Amino acid sequence: MADRKVELTQKIEEQGSKVRQLKAEGAEKTAIDAEVAVLKGLKQELAVLEGTAGETKSKGKAGKTSFVLKTPKGTKDYNDKDMAIREKVFSTITKVFKKHGAVTIDTPVFELKEILSGKYGEDSKLIYDLKDQGGEECSLRYDLTVPFARFLAMNGKEYQNFKRYHIAKVYRRDQPAMTKGRMREFYQCDFDIAGVYDPMIPDAEILRVLCEALTALDLGKFTVKINHRKILDGIFEVCGVPEDNIRPISSAVDKLDKLPWEDVKKEMTEEKGLAPEVADKIGEYVKLKGGRDLLEKLFKDAILTGNKSASEGLADMALLFDFLEVFGIMDLMSFDLSLARGLDYYTGIIYEAVTEKSAPPKLAEGTKPKTKEGTDELDESTVGVGSIAAGGRYDNLVGMFSGRNKKGEPNLKIPCVGVSIGVERVFSILMAKQKAEDIKSNETEVYVIAVGDGLLKERMQIAKELWEADIKASFLFKNKPKLDKQWAACEKEHIPFAVIIGRDELDKGEIRLKDMRSKNEAQGGGVTLQRADMVKELKARLQTM
Amino acid sequence: MADRKVELTQKIEEQGSKVRQLKAEGAEKTAIDAEVAVLKGLKQELAVLEGTAGETKSKGKAGKTSFVLKTPKGTKDYNDKDMAIREKVFSTITKVFKKHGAVTIDTPVFELKEILSGKYGEDSKLIYDLKDQGGEECSLRYDLTVPFARFLAMNGKEYQNFKRYHIAKVYRRDQPAMTKGRMREFYQCDFDIAGVYDPMIPDAEILRVLCEALTALDLGKFTVKINHRKILDGIFEVCGVPEDNIRPISSAVDKLDKLPWEDVKKEMTEEKGLAPEVADKIGEYVKLKGGRDLLEKLFKDAILTGNKSASEGLADMALLFDFLEVFGIMDLMSFDLSLARGLDYYTGIIYEAVTEKSAPPKLAEGTKPKTKEGTDELDESTVGVGSIAAGGRYDNLVGMFSGRNKKGEPNLKIPCVGVSIGVERVFSILMAKQKAEDIKSNETEVYVIAVGDGLLKERMQIAKELWEADIKASFLFKNKPKLDKQWAACEKEHIPFAVIIGRDELDKGEIRLKDMRSKNEAQGGGVTLQRADMVKELKARLQTM
Repeated sequence: MADRKVELTQKIEEQGSKVRQLKAEGAEKTAIDAEVAVLKGLKQELAVLEGTAGETKSKGKAGKTSFVLKTPKGTKDYNDKDMAIREKVFSTITKVFKKHGAVTIDTPVFELKEILSGKYGEDSKLIYDLKDQGGEECSLRYDLTVPFARFLAMNGKEYQNFKRYHIAKVYRRDQPAMTKGRMREFYQCDFDIAGVYDPMIPDAEILRVLCEALTALDLGKFTVKINHRKILDGIFEVCGVPEDNIRPISSAVDKLDKLPWEDVKKEMTEEKGLAPEVADKIGEYVKLKGGRDLLEKLFKDAILTGNKSASEGLADMALLFDFLEVFGIMDLMSFDLSLARGLDYYTGIIYEAVTEKSAPPKLAEGTKPKTKEGTDELDESTVGVGSIAAGGRYDNLVGMFSGRNKKGEPNLKIPCVGVSIGVERVFSILMAKQKAEDIKSNETEVYVIAVGDGLLKERMQIAKELWEADIKASFLFKNKPKLDKQWAACEKEHIPFAVIIGRDELDKGEIRLKDMRSKNEAQGGGVTLQRADMVKELKARLQTM
Repeated sequence: MADRKVELTQKIEEQGSKVRQLKAEGAEKTAIDAEVAVLKGLKQELAVLEGTAGETKSKGKAGKTSFVLKTPKGTKDYNDKDMAIREKVFSTITKVFKKHGAVTIDTPVFELKEILSGKYGEDSKLIYDLKDQGGEECSLRYDLTVPFARFLAMNGKEYQNFKRYHIAKVYRRDQPAMTKGRMREFYQCDFDIAGVYDPMIPDAEILRVLCEALTALDLGKFTVKINHRKILDGIFEVCGVPEDNIRPISSAVDKLDKLPWEDVKKEMTEEKGLAPEVADKIGEYVKLKGGRDLLEKLFKDAILTGNKSASEGLADMALLFDFLEVFGIMDLMSFDLSLARGLDYYTGIIYEAVTEKSAPPKLAEGTKPKTKEGTDELDESTVGVGSIAAGGRYDNLVGMFSGRNKKGEPNLKIPCVGVSIGVERVFSILMAKQKAEDIKSNETEVYVIAVGDGLLKERMQIAKELWEADIKASFLFKNKPKLDKQWAACEKEHIPFAVIIGRDELDKGEIRLKDMRSKNEAQGGGVTLQRADMVKELKARLQTM
C-alpha cells in the first residue's frame, strides 16, 4: 500500500502539471475538464489510502471532499422501504415454518476455518476468511447447512429429532449481480428436518413446506424440479462412467439449465475425458422430464432397474410421489433427470424451485452471461434470477463432524433433509412489483397536531397518553411548528389519524379527531370529542381498519 | 502453519517415546496418564492443522476422534429455547420502537476499513478485520452507530428527519465473560433520532423509549444515570484541566462505577499528569448525584454558571427535566456527575441504564476483576452484567463522513441522539429467571395420533387439512408408530391438542379430540367429533387459549 501511495503522489504531480499546461495553452474546456477528472480520481484514491478522506482540505482549491462513501463490493444497505418488504417476506416464510412445528436456532456469523474446509468443493475459494489477529483461524459462514450439521454433531444427543429453521446472512466472494439478488452478503431461509425416520416422510413434508411458502409469497406460477442422486448415479454407472468420474460428470450435467447439451457434452469428453458414446448414452437419459409417467417408464428400463443404486432411487421416488399425492402438491413437481445440484453432500432426493420470472433472457446458442466492460461485474441484463429455492437429503454431513469409531463408522449419524429459500431473489422479484412511494414503512397510527400556539408540552402529554394505551403516536419535534408542516409530515408518513389540539378545546377538555385517509370534505376539521374519550374512540376506529 | 506441523510431528514422536519409556519402567499410572494427555493434545492440534480431524483413525489405538468441535472464542450457538426467549425480547423491544414511529434499516456486517477507523479511540484495537483476499480492506462492524452515520451521510438528502431502529450483531475482539453476556459476537438494539429539531425534544422521547422498553422487558427496578458532556467539560475547565487533557481525564472519570476514587485519582495524576489539587476539585464535583435538587445546586454555583459550556449544559438539563416530567419518567432518572461514557463522539446528554441485577459482586477495595488461572478469560464470578443500555447525543458524527466545504464545515450536518440496549445482558438476566424445560420453543397446536394400525397416509391427510386451515400441526414420521411414542412426543413438545384417529372412527367419518393440558380424567380418550367439524372446533378452542 505504501508503494501505491508513492506512485499516486507522483502521478498526481504529473497530472497537475498536465492540467496547468493545458490551461496555459488555452486548451478547450472539455479537454481540460477530462484531465481534471483524472486528477480528482487520483487524489481521491490517495485520500482513501491515507485515511484522510473526509478531513478538512481548506488549503487546496479542490476544496470539498474525496471520501468514497460506499458499502463493500457485493453488499448493500436496506432502507426502511426495503426492510418493510423484507420483514413481510420473512414473516410470511416464518409463519409457514412454524405451522410445520419448526423451531429456530442461531449460530455465529463466523466459524472455525476447519469446520468449513472440505465441504464445498471448488466453491471453497469463495469463502471469506478473517484476518489472523492472533487466536483462531476463522471464516464467514458460506451457508447455513454446514453450521447446522456442526451444531447437530455438538448437541446431537439432545437433538436426535429436530425440525429447525434458520434465517440469516451468509457470505460468498462471488461475482455480484445486485439487481438480480446475487450478492456477496445475502440472506438464506433454511428449513431442515434431522432424525432417523421412515423413508420419504420428512422429505415429503419438506416439499409441502416449500410449496406452501412459495404460494404464500405470491410469486406467481412455480415448478419444483425434482430428482434423486441415487437414480443419477445409477444412470452414470449403467452408461459406463468410471466411479471416480461420477461427481465431475454430475457437475457437468448440473449446467444443463444454463448451457446447451453440446457444450455440456464437450465438457464431459474434452475436459473430463469421458468417451463420446458414454456421454451420448447419458444425454438420452438426462433429457427426460415428466411426472409419474416418467417414473413408470424408468421402472420398465431393465438395465436401470438392474442397477442397485438406481433401483433404490426409483423405489424412493415411487413412495415419495404417493406422499406428495396425499399432500396435494404432485402437480407442482417436474421429475427432471437433468437436475444434479452442485454440492457434494447430497445423498438422496434433490430439488430446485423455479418461477417464470427466474428465467434468464434468451441468449444466443453458446453465448454466456457477459461482464460489464472494464469490470468484473456481471452485465445484469444477461442473467436471470435463477432458482428461488433448492435443497435435498444429506445423510452423511453430521457424521463428518462427529468423529469415527474404530471401525471407521461415524460416532453419530443424523440423516437430514432440508430446503433453502433464496430470499434475495424472492425479494428482487417482489420489489420489481412495488412502487417505493406506496410502501408505508412505519406503523404510526396517530399524529398529534397543534393549532395556533405551539402547545409543545400539551402535545407531549397527549402522545404519552396514547403510548400508554399502546397506540402508535408521533408529533413534530418543534416548539412552534407551522400547521402546514404538521399536515405534511402526517401525510408523508401515511399516518391514518390526526388528533388536533388548540388552546380553546383544551380548556374545554376537548380534542378533535380527523381521519386522514378520507378526502370527505364533510368531516372538515374533524369531529370534536371529550378528551377522556379519545383513547376509546381511537381504539375502536383502529380495530376496524 | 507448515512449520508448526513439522514441529508437532517431531514433538509427537518425542512424547510417544517418553510414554513408552515410562510404561517400560513401570512408572505410576498417574504419571503415565499425564504424559498420555500431553500426547493426545499434540495429536489433536496436528489433526486440526491437517484438516483430518474427524477422519478415520482406525490404525492407531487412540481410535475415536480428535476434532475440536466448537464455535470460535467469545461466540456461541443459540438453541431453540434460547431463541424463544430472544425472539420475545426482540419483539417486546420492537413493539416499543414502532409505537414511537421508528422504521428499521439494515447495513452490511462488514464495512470498508476506513469507515470505522478513527471512530473508537483506544478500542479500535478490538475491531475484527477481514483477510486481504484481493479487493477492498474490510472490517466487521463494531457497533451500529457508525454504520448508521455512514448511511445518513450517503442518503442524508432523503433522510434529514429519521427515527430508525436497528437490531443486529456487532463484533469486538474483547475479553469474553460469556455467562454475563459479554461476548465477541453480540446483538445490539439501537434506536436513534436524526434531524434538526428544537432542543431536547427528541432527547426526551429517546429516554421515554428507553424507559418503556426496560419496563416492558420486566427486568425489575432500574435507574437511568444521566449527565451532559457540556456540564462535564465545564467542570473540567473550571477545575483547571488543560484542554488537550479533557478527553483523557473524562475517560478516567468514566471508571468511577468500577473503581474507587483513589484509583481514579491515581490514574489522573500519575498516568495523565494532572495536578493533585485539580484532581481533588474534580473529585468534589463528580461525587454529586441527585435529581432536580442537584440541578438547582449547580445553578447556584457561580463559578460553574460562569463557564459557557457548563451553563449551556445546565440550561439543556433544565429543559430536558421539564419534558421528562411531562413524559412521567423523571423519577427514574439519576443526575450523576460521575457518568462520562467512553466514546469520543458524544456532544450533549449521555445516559446509562442499570438494574439491581447489573451490579458486580462486591470486591475488596482496590481489587479488579480476575482472569481465570492460565487463561485470558474473565473469572465471571468477579464481574457484573454492567449497564444494560446506554447512549447520548452525537451531533458531529455524520459530518465526519460527509466531507467538508471550503470553509472546513461539514457538507452535511445531521444531529443525532440515540440509545443502544445491550440485549445480551438483558437476555442473561432473563435466562437466569427461567427453567429450560418450561420453555415451549415450537408453536405447534395439534398433534395427529393414530391408534392401532399406523394409518400414515390418513395422518398425512389430516395434517394437510389442518395446515390448509392455518392450524399448526405435526405427526410422527413413522409408518407404524407406537401409541406411547406418539403421546410422549406430544407431551415433550407441550402441544395443547391431539387429534386421534382409528380405522373405525375414520370409517364412520369421525375423529377424537383431546385437550392435552387438562389432566381431567373425565375426558378419557377425548371427545368424538364429526371429521367435517374438526377444523371449526379446533379454531374455537385455540381462540380461547
